[in-house]
Amino acid sequence: MSDLELAIAPMHRIVKKAGAERVSESASKELAKWLEDIGIRIAKEAIDYAMHAGRKTVKDEDIEIAARKLLGK
Amino acid sequence: MSDLELAIAPMHRIVKKAGAERVSESASKELAKWLEDIGIRIAKEAIDYAMHAGRKTVKDEDIEIAARKLLGK
Repeated sequence: MSDLELAIAPMHRIVKKAGAERVSESASKELAKWLEDIGIRIAKEAIDYAMHAGRKTVKDEDIEIAARKLLGK
Repeated sequence: MSDLELAIAPMHRIVKKAGAERVSESASKELAKWLEDIGIRIAKEAIDYAMHAGRKTVKDEDIEIAARKLLGK
């Protein structure tokens, strides 16, 4: 996971939006790492759902069911 | 959650990285919504840990412990 797709700036904004006064750069990088990890996990599940439905295109409904399954909501 | 911090392009890349052949734009938007939601939840926990440690700055260790707690790893 050295090549992350997620940039640092939006991570910083997310932590500030959550109410943080200050955020270290390494904290933003850590959040990027975790969100990319869970993003990949959601996407892999979503791909399974799409394939099961006979589609090669991942749709929003695949992401939603995969995310609900993995994040328990 | 109408104003998302996460852009669509990195979401598309994450789903492709997970192995998808094609990804609808609405699927990328859906993933952005979920990742921002979990990001905010991780960040709020992390802020609690930072405050508990007497800090106003959220550090990588706060993000890590919060993410492990919420994502169960």
